[in-house]
Amino acid sequence: MKILTTLEKLKKFGKKLTNEAKIGKNPNIDIPVRSLANVVFDKKAGMVKMGNAVGKRYLFNVAHIRKFVQTLEVATTAKELLRVNKHLNLREVYYRVKRTLPGTDINIVDEQTETNKAIEDLELITGVPREQLHINADKEGVAAGKVVILDKGDTINWSKLGSGGWSVPSNVENIKFKDVDAKFIIYLEKMATWERLHEDRIWEKLNCIIIASRGQSTRGIRRLLQRLSTEHNLPIYVLVDGDPWGIYIYSVLKYGSISLAHMAETLVIPKAKYLGLSADDIEKYGLKKNIIKFKDVDIKRLKQMQEYDWFKDDKAWQRQFKKWKDIGGKVELAALTSRGISFISDTYIPEKIKKKDWLE
Amino acid sequence: MKILTTLEKLKKFGKKLTNEAKIGKNPNIDIPVRSLANVVFDKKAGMVKMGNAVGKRYLFNVAHIRKFVQTLEVATTAKELLRVNKHLNLREVYYRVKRTLPGTDINIVDEQTETNKAIEDLELITGVPREQLHINADKEGVAAGKVVILDKGDTINWSKLGSGGWSVPSNVENIKFKDVDAKFIIYLEKMATWERLHEDRIWEKLNCIIIASRGQSTRGIRRLLQRLSTEHNLPIYVLVDGDPWGIYIYSVLKYGSISLAHMAETLVIPKAKYLGLSADDIEKYGLKKNIIKFKDVDIKRLKQMQEYDWFKDDKAWQRQFKKWKDIGGKVELAALTSRGISFISDTYIPEKIKKKDWLE
Repeated sequence: MKILTTLEKLKKFGKKLTNEAKIGKNPNIDIPVRSLANVVFDKKAGMVKMGNAVGKRYLFNVAHIRKFVQTLEVATTAKELLRVNKHLNLREVYYRVKRTLPGTDINIVDEQTETNKAIEDLELITGVPREQLHINADKEGVAAGKVVILDKGDTINWSKLGSGGWSVPSNVENIKFKDVDAKFIIYLEKMATWERLHEDRIWEKLNCIIIASRGQSTRGIRRLLQRLSTEHNLPIYVLVDGDPWGIYIYSVLKYGSISLAHMAETLVIPKAKYLGLSADDIEKYGLKKNIIKFKDVDIKRLKQMQEYDWFKDDKAWQRQFKKWKDIGGKVELAALTSRGISFISDTYIPEKIKKKDWLE
Repeated sequence: MKILTTLEKLKKFGKKLTNEAKIGKNPNIDIPVRSLANVVFDKKAGMVKMGNAVGKRYLFNVAHIRKFVQTLEVATTAKELLRVNKHLNLREVYYRVKRTLPGTDINIVDEQTETNKAIEDLELITGVPREQLHINADKEGVAAGKVVILDKGDTINWSKLGSGGWSVPSNVENIKFKDVDAKFIIYLEKMATWERLHEDRIWEKLNCIIIASRGQSTRGIRRLLQRLSTEHNLPIYVLVDGDPWGIYIYSVLKYGSISLAHMAETLVIPKAKYLGLSADDIEKYGLKKNIIKFKDVDIKRLKQMQEYDWFKDDKAWQRQFKKWKDIGGKVELAALTSRGISFISDTYIPEKIKKKDWLE
């Protein structure tokens, strides 16, 4: 079977609709239903996925036409972007599509949420992640390690970029990993922790890659981690503050999320492991004095996660949730500094990895 | 006169205090007063600066001792960092300093705001920016252009880093600019705009440097811009959304701010110019349809800035403020996409620079 290029997939989609129009049939699109009821946790695959429910959207249907046209407009923009080999981000696509229909006061889109949804629909229709449709997410994050990549004709060595590191682009689909000399990846939710580990040259000492973004990971970062992990068979150690939000970052990386269930195959990272801070680390590493009391919203989040399909029958995780509840507060990675400037790099990380002291 | 190193300045500071203790004098520190009343706009220098008011802080004074000790603790941490040639960020310094005095329940610091203030005091006492005390701000931002730098033993070419670019570190004090081939710098408040210009390779076409961070610029980014601008005599074109916050970003870059008045000399960039979006651009570039109504907070900000010392007698800026008020809404740079995918790079920027269509 011939594998279609993204452009061919878009053309096929357009062709189907124009053919239907030609023979007097109401042009229509099959779209998997994006509702909570159609999202399932696939235990075997270990990820949050779309179910099988499919809906139909018709051109000549007053309830459908607005979304129908928006989807086509977004497809037209994607085709234009592929043709000229350029990229736009979500906000720019919104402005590109936004206009008033001649002779009316109706705008094709009024809010960015409309184009965002149309783009997700187009991902579902074509089976192509929006990055490959040349529609980018946010640029965020930094990388260092003994990795050489090819990108846009440049050969980039992640171990030769001074104190700064390589700034991860929003779209990493076309990056080629030329040489990857590492045993694992450490993923960090904070730039500051990345700078700590980078100054300590932990990637050199432990032969690993360090990648960070800010809080919840962007799609670009998730794709970079997923590609490195799958293409080079590398475990990813997630290193976050000891709080519900850190655990949530790990959860999304490893199992996916409801909102991106349709992209699970390209985003989920089964090899992710939660390195810390764990509830046990607080005693082990003498951090009791640095506990910051949970807010109500933290406790609520903790309770929610405790019930997640992938956590609820996991004894080790249930023990963690219980322990965090008893502790009643969070502890930041930065608190390890109280033990020494480079305690995190010299002791905490190597010790935990050596003892396989992680959760997964 | 011998120029003291940072370490020598810290030692001199410590020496003075121990000498006073030895001769039975109450150890004391001269600290410029950091209050609004002691901040002035220096018209000639074109920047917001500290005034001349100086206060004394004594060890044996119940009202002073807490701050006195905190300042010394921060100085001790800075000395330790300089000795081992490592860096910590503000949060880490807080944890490093935080501890309970033996036999009491008194913590040296309870909140990070206390160490933050002590660090600012130390900057004032020693006359050394905290980056040179090895205390870093946030890591943020990205750079591209025909620039070669030396950093930590690496030679880094900003024009050979693929779609990602060089990730700017929090501390740029020790970077050496080896080769700078550019006529100007474009500074952007959004990563997305940076990716647009980078994909269009505007730095190659217009022979410039493009640097972006997110919203209000960090100290690292301001220092990088300031160093490039002064050491290589380059104008900086600030390109931001057409709204009060964009103007504020420009204002802080060019004239400084009250909170960092004591660091004006190392942070303020007199060569900054406001390239856009201007109130006039909306009509000029057909963006009327993309106006997003101001909120109350936007209008309030606009009014505040209108009264700034450096804007209040400036006819061009007063005209802008009036016009924005009449327009009643903001326009985002992304809206230029409605004119074409690369309209901003191919038309807007080159045209505005050619016509000297900026404000300053």
